[in-house]
This record gives sequence, C-alpha cells and structure tokens, in this order.
Amino acid sequence: MRNKNVQREAALTYQHHFVVRFSEVDMMGVAWHGSYVTYMEDGREQFGIHYAGLGYDDYFRTRYVAPVVNLNIDYKQSLKCGDHAIVEIRYIKSPAAKVIFDYTIYREKDMAVMATGTTTQVFLDPDGNLQYTCPDFYEEWKKRWLSE
Amino acid sequence: MRNKNVQREAALTYQHHFVVRFSEVDMMGVAWHGSYVTYMEDGREQFGIHYAGLGYDDYFRTRYVAPVVNLNIDYKQSLKCGDHAIVEIRYIKSPAAKVIFDYTIYREKDMAVMATGTTTQVFLDPDGNLQYTCPDFYEEWKKRWLSE
Amino acid sequence: MRNKNVQREAALTYQHHFVVRFSEVDMMGVAWHGSYVTYMEDGREQFGIHYAGLGYDDYFRTRYVAPVVNLNIDYKQSLKCGDHAIVEIRYIKSPAAKVIFDYTIYREKDMAVMATGTTTQVFLDPDGNLQYTCPDFYEEWKKRWLSE
Amino acid sequence: MRNKNVQREAALTYQHHFVVRFSEVDMMGVAWHGSYVTYMEDGREQFGIHYAGLGYDDYFRTRYVAPVVNLNIDYKQSLKCGDHAIVEIRYIKSPAAKVIFDYTIYREKDMAVMATGTTTQVFLDPDGNLQYTCPDFYEEWKKRWLSE
Repeated sequence: MRNKNVQREAALTYQHHFVVRFSEVDMMGVAWHGSYVTYMEDGREQFGIHYAGLGYDDYFRTRYVAPVVNLNIDYKQSLKCGDHAIVEIRYIKSPAAKVIFDYTIYREKDMAVMATGTTTQVFLDPDGNLQYTCPDFYEEWKKRWLSE
Repeated sequence: MRNKNVQREAALTYQHHFVVRFSEVDMMGVAWHGSYVTYMEDGREQFGIHYAGLGYDDYFRTRYVAPVVNLNIDYKQSLKCGDHAIVEIRYIKSPAAKVIFDYTIYREKDMAVMATGTTTQVFLDPDGNLQYTCPDFYEEWKKRWLSE
Repeated sequence: MRNKNVQREAALTYQHHFVVRFSEVDMMGVAWHGSYVTYMEDGREQFGIHYAGLGYDDYFRTRYVAPVVNLNIDYKQSLKCGDHAIVEIRYIKSPAAKVIFDYTIYREKDMAVMATGTTTQVFLDPDGNLQYTCPDFYEEWKKRWLSE
Repeated sequence: MRNKNVQREAALTYQHHFVVRFSEVDMMGVAWHGSYVTYMEDGREQFGIHYAGLGYDDYFRTRYVAPVVNLNIDYKQSLKCGDHAIVEIRYIKSPAAKVIFDYTIYREKDMAVMATGTTTQVFLDPDGNLQYTCPDFYEEWKKRWLSE
C-alpha cells in the first residue's frame, strides 16, 4: 500500500484553474464533498484536450469508453464559495490496460492542499467488453506523449 | 397572458413525493433554486411511468426526443433540508405538437405552496427535425388516456 | 406582455465565458436543460464581482439575501459537451425593490443563440422579511454604477 | 490493507431504495460516476433518521459538523436511467473519533452489485477544531444503538 503523503512519479501533468460556484457549496458554506468529483473530471477533460488524442472526441470517434472503476478522495481543508482553486492532474504510467490519474486540489491564494485523489479507468470496446490490452488509439497516444 | 394565480384545467394529474437532499441545499440552508428543475423533471418521469406510454423507454423505442423549450418557475417559499415535499404535475391539453405541464410543489406537512412552474416540450424526429404534427406514439398515448 | 424576441434595454452588461462540462450533459449528448440555471447563476456571480458591490461577500456582510422568485428560460438550440459558450447577462432597471437580469447564452464559435432567460430577485432582511424598499447597500451600488 | 471483496462486520445496517434520475445519467446512458456520491449520502441521511440521534437536526442542534475526510468508491457495473436500486449502508465500529460507513449499491431487479464504497467522517466543534474524542451526542447515540 503506497504512502499517500508521497506523490507518485507522474509522466505528464496539467493544472486546471477554476472558481468555486455557489451551486457547488453546501449549507456549511463550503464546497460540497461531491463537487470535488466534478473538479477532478474537469481536470481530466482539460488534460485530454491539452495532451491531444485523449479527449471525448477521440473516445467518440473510436467508440471506446473508459469508465471510472475506482475513485478515491482525501479531503484536507474546505474550499469556500468564490475561492479560486487549481486542480493538478498527474498521469501515472501503468503496465495494465488502465488509465490512472492522481490529483491535488489547491486553493490558489496560498497553494494550500484542499484534497488529493486518484481515479482508475478501464476500457470497454463498442460492445461493452472489458479490454485486457490497450486500444490502438490509446497506444498511439502513449507513443506520442510518453516517449522521449 | 394567463393569470398565474389561477390553475389551468388539467386533463391528467399526478403527485410525486420526495425528500429534500442535503446536496440540493445551498449555503442559505434552503433548497437551491436550480434543484426545483430536478423536482419538476422527477415529477415528469413518474407521470410518464404512471400514465404508461410516455416514459423514457417509449422515447428511446421510437427515437423521438422531446426537449424542453420553455421553463418557468415562480418561487413562493423555501424548502429546507430533509423537508418532505410533493410535486404535483398537471397535463395541459394543447392543439399544437407540444407537451405542456403545469407544476405545483408543496411542503407536505402543511401543503403550503413552495413553487409553481410550467414546462413546454416539442418533438424532434430521429434526425433532429422539429415536428409540426404529433408523432404517432404520442397520438396513441393521447387516445389511450385522454378520451372518455 | 413584452415581445421576448426583442432585447430590453440594459443598463449594464457582462459576458462570462464557459465550457460545457461532461457532467452537465444528458444522455441525449447535449447540455441538460437544468444546467442552464447554473450557467445563468455563474454569469450573475461574475457580474456581481465585475460591478463591485453586488457579490456574495456584500450579501454576507449586510446579511441580506436576494432569492430568485422567478426564473424563465427559452431554449433555442443545444450546447454539446466541450462547447465553448458565453452567457451574456444584462441588468434591467426596475422602480421596484427587485433585481432583474436578462440573459442570452451563445455558442462561441458562431455566436448562435442557444437560450435566453430572465431572473427576478427580491430582498429579504436578516430576519427573513420581504423588503418593499431597496436595502442601503443596493441603493449605494445603483448610485455607483448607474448614475451618469 | 483489507480485502475489499470481503464485507467488514457491521454493527448497524440500513437499506435505502431509490430510482436513477434522468439528470443523474451521462451521455453514455448510465448513471454518472459522481451520482454515486449522492446515493451514498442519501443512504447516510436515511440511516441517521432511522437510527435516531444522528440526523442533520442533531448536528445543527449541537453545532458540531462531521465532514467527510475520505471517500472511496469501486464501480462494478452501471445503473441505467429509471433503474430501481438500493444503497445498503453499514456502520463500522471504530475506536477513533471517526464515523465510518461501508456501502453497497445494488440493482433491485437482480440484486447485482453496482458499486461498493466507504466514507470516513471526523468531528469539528462549533469553532472548527478537529476533535480527538467523540462529542457527547455521538457517545450517547452509540450507547443507545450499539450496546446489547
């Protein structure tokens, strides 16, 4: 079991800036804990656009889907309504046919860590079958962005 | 312009009970105004199941869609977290190729009116074309439920 | 009844840019109609920050709240996942103790109108009483931004 | 590290029934993975009402809050729009000043496991200080429901 306080080595990283919406805040006046799932997904979307070839368009074109099979979030401090924040997303290499990202959510003004998280995705082919090897488009994406 | 304080005559009505979720409440401690859109949609779903033939399955089967083209909500009082409430949905007859519902949202304990609303939907065929006459499945649904 | 196809004269306007999130899209592949409530609220938040003195902080400081009492949205076309869009918010002068905004939501690439809307807000004092005259902080805001 | 395929012994359990809403479904036609956070929270709310003394009212009255500090979800299969489902919530005893729940989400028609999850909550006093011992109201709740 890995020590969650030590960041795993990431092959690619991206930072997405956002502002906490009123509709994301709960009656305690802080971002509802479920809102962080959206923040992480927003980071993942922007990552896929920035490192071209892993965006929704690419999934639609190939008709593969990559559902999240594990979600883990550790909450440290609370974001407030209107807070400027950053979700940092880190691509973690895996030998398996999985897509693994680590996340850190920062409050922008002091870069305090609000939460850390991880998602794991697998691939389903157009018929919904779990894939044990990476689809071609993902192999190409890895060649493009991960080779040195 | 109709007097919004007088209920229009409804051909069919249905009442759906619900409880206000924590995640639907804003930092003022009351149901966020956008949550009422969901309450109204929940009522519409249950209406379509109760008066069989107008559920999501029927839309999927026929490949027609019925997007909301107008949404109007008047807010009277505020629901609180955990409140038991009722959305009453009323089907309003229309000569046009439209589906019109009126809604009243009540707090269950005293049946006080929290909000009233209206939605108007139109039909698009599987190619996305606006329909000026009602699709067959909707004509059949009307014959089944509205004739006396 | 005003002609909804003609824009009312606005005293102040602001444009907020956004991208349609995956979590905001429904199974038809387009932004869920309830998501537009959030887009309009996001525009309102940014308007209140841009024209300083009408942000959440100002409400918290004065302990007044301004609940939405009417929401109206006309949907014209559909935004898709990942679409870049703009919500234009227009402040409409009113002699009453109300805050009225008109909205137009554009798809950025062709500036096609996706939806138009209106919200009306009233003021409640810290004890929850409806106000028939504008609170001092709102009168000051109007003097600051609306006088010529 | 515990074997996640073996259920931990639970001191108290509760089952909450729900129907998957249209607004919770994504463009793949299945419940969006973030919706499960809401399903788990709904289960937690109903648990706190069923085993009286741990509801929102009790938190408000005592002015303690119990934020989620860890959330973990393993997704197995996908719920579809309109599916009837059950969230089973299991209270796990802990010697620490923490509230731990395990969850299993079932599709009702065949009781297939859709997802499993865990949440961990801590206590903050009215000044926001982390508590290293359980607040009185929680000790009383434990005495009431957990003693045999």
